[in-house]
Amino acid sequence: MTSYIMDKLYDRVEKRGVVCVGLDTSLDYIPEHLKEGRTSSEAIFEFNKQIIDATYDVASCFKVQIAYYEALGLEGLTAYKKTLEYLRKKDEIIIADIKRGDIAATAKMYAKAHFEGDFEADFITLSPYMGMDSIEPYIPYIESGKKGIFSLVRTSNKGAEDIEYLDTISGDKVYHIVGDKLMEMGKDFTSSCGYHPLGGVIGCTHVEEGKELRKRFNSMFFLIPGYGAQGGKAEDVAMYLNNGNGGVVNSSRGILLAYKKENREKEFALCAREEAIRMRDEIKKAVNSL
Amino acid sequence: MTSYIMDKLYDRVEKRGVVCVGLDTSLDYIPEHLKEGRTSSEAIFEFNKQIIDATYDVASCFKVQIAYYEALGLEGLTAYKKTLEYLRKKDEIIIADIKRGDIAATAKMYAKAHFEGDFEADFITLSPYMGMDSIEPYIPYIESGKKGIFSLVRTSNKGAEDIEYLDTISGDKVYHIVGDKLMEMGKDFTSSCGYHPLGGVIGCTHVEEGKELRKRFNSMFFLIPGYGAQGGKAEDVAMYLNNGNGGVVNSSRGILLAYKKENREKEFALCAREEAIRMRDEIKKAVNSL
Repeated sequence: MTSYIMDKLYDRVEKRGVVCVGLDTSLDYIPEHLKEGRTSSEAIFEFNKQIIDATYDVASCFKVQIAYYEALGLEGLTAYKKTLEYLRKKDEIIIADIKRGDIAATAKMYAKAHFEGDFEADFITLSPYMGMDSIEPYIPYIESGKKGIFSLVRTSNKGAEDIEYLDTISGDKVYHIVGDKLMEMGKDFTSSCGYHPLGGVIGCTHVEEGKELRKRFNSMFFLIPGYGAQGGKAEDVAMYLNNGNGGVVNSSRGILLAYKKENREKEFALCAREEAIRMRDEIKKAVNSL
Repeated sequence: MTSYIMDKLYDRVEKRGVVCVGLDTSLDYIPEHLKEGRTSSEAIFEFNKQIIDATYDVASCFKVQIAYYEALGLEGLTAYKKTLEYLRKKDEIIIADIKRGDIAATAKMYAKAHFEGDFEADFITLSPYMGMDSIEPYIPYIESGKKGIFSLVRTSNKGAEDIEYLDTISGDKVYHIVGDKLMEMGKDFTSSCGYHPLGGVIGCTHVEEGKELRKRFNSMFFLIPGYGAQGGKAEDVAMYLNNGNGGVVNSSRGILLAYKKENREKEFALCAREEAIRMRDEIKKAVNSL
């Protein structure tokens, strides 16, 4: 079965590199000159728009973290809606980082919320705690070829050991089992690029496991957080990729706040571009050194 | 440490019974006469308002399922905001069923989103897959005594066996470990009613485990879904309570759509009230028969 969106993301990585620009836009990230004469909602959208315009040709996709917008209520969600509209108009790939996790009728409502209407994205992130019936309601959208998901599988935060890394009596850890089940569900949707649109969120800071996971979940596309601000290095990331594809690597604050390192407020968008290029090239180099 | 909100919920259950009215309001639940001359947002709010007015004195609290509102984008979230405002004004206890699950700065943003501002609730539901550092960012609000959470622990859906019921090498299932960790975090916040405001979502359809869980998680307040439409019976529910307190039992469609059983469209709010009373009394009777 062909997945239009999975092949599109794969092609974008081939052409533009693995960088996923994270639009976790907090009001206090926005330079003062951009806030003048604008409502919060307008300032956030203007900031995002300039970041998008400055980075899209060196990034495979954009990840929009909805929590930052929800925190400002309807005002924030208006900026969220406008940001997604702008990305869709530019034909950029949107990953909505929503980590919703519910079942049955409720999950169908979340699918409708984030695959249609005001908040339409191409991919969404999901939390699988309630089991695979928290993923199934999204399958009709996946069957259309136009949408995909990234389920949490194995993250790199300290608390990941509380549940994800627990050893089960089968010999596998919880995250192995989650990943295996996603692979099983995804295999019918493996597209011509070799991956299926039931991707996994896989943290990159346990480099010793990178090879093992890449092999076990060989047709799973990875959304890799934790680069930069959260401690992941280019050499770590490279282990989770297949010749530099098979995943995208997110950076949010590293890109959005690149201007702060050099006090170049007015050039925040150019600084973001420079950082995205630096990151892309650093990872490319690490991949080539493997 | 005293938790104002935990004691308040406990008192409400003592006075009004265990029913939690679930405002999972879908547009197609709303009688035609209510939709006439109203936008979607207005119709949803008007429906909720009439349900609230008709049930508040026989219900301990209201659970608002945000997915139903997100599905309609900004229009739906406007109704969500107005519903919460109305509940706060009436001093009713709000459980925002959002099942968010993220860490660090992102979780702080979710806390801000749902404990302050447009979408302020008293309790929120959380998904713990990423571990206890997906709960910690909410603790400052819990320390204030004014807010509480319900973490997913053990649900009753079929997929719950995929992760929650996995046997770990410690001899416990995943949900035991999650519950134990919540108990550990919660014990410093145990309030005069005997419960702490780090509650658990516990499905009620595995009656054989009801007694065991009630004992093991003795100071954890339960949010119990699955009554009625999802197959839970009053006798099952009774096993998860302590003399009829220690938890609230949610019913959404059973209450909101009670009018459909009898073709009493114009009396939808009265039907909701009758169903809430019937449910309250049925559970009370089952508790007394234990």
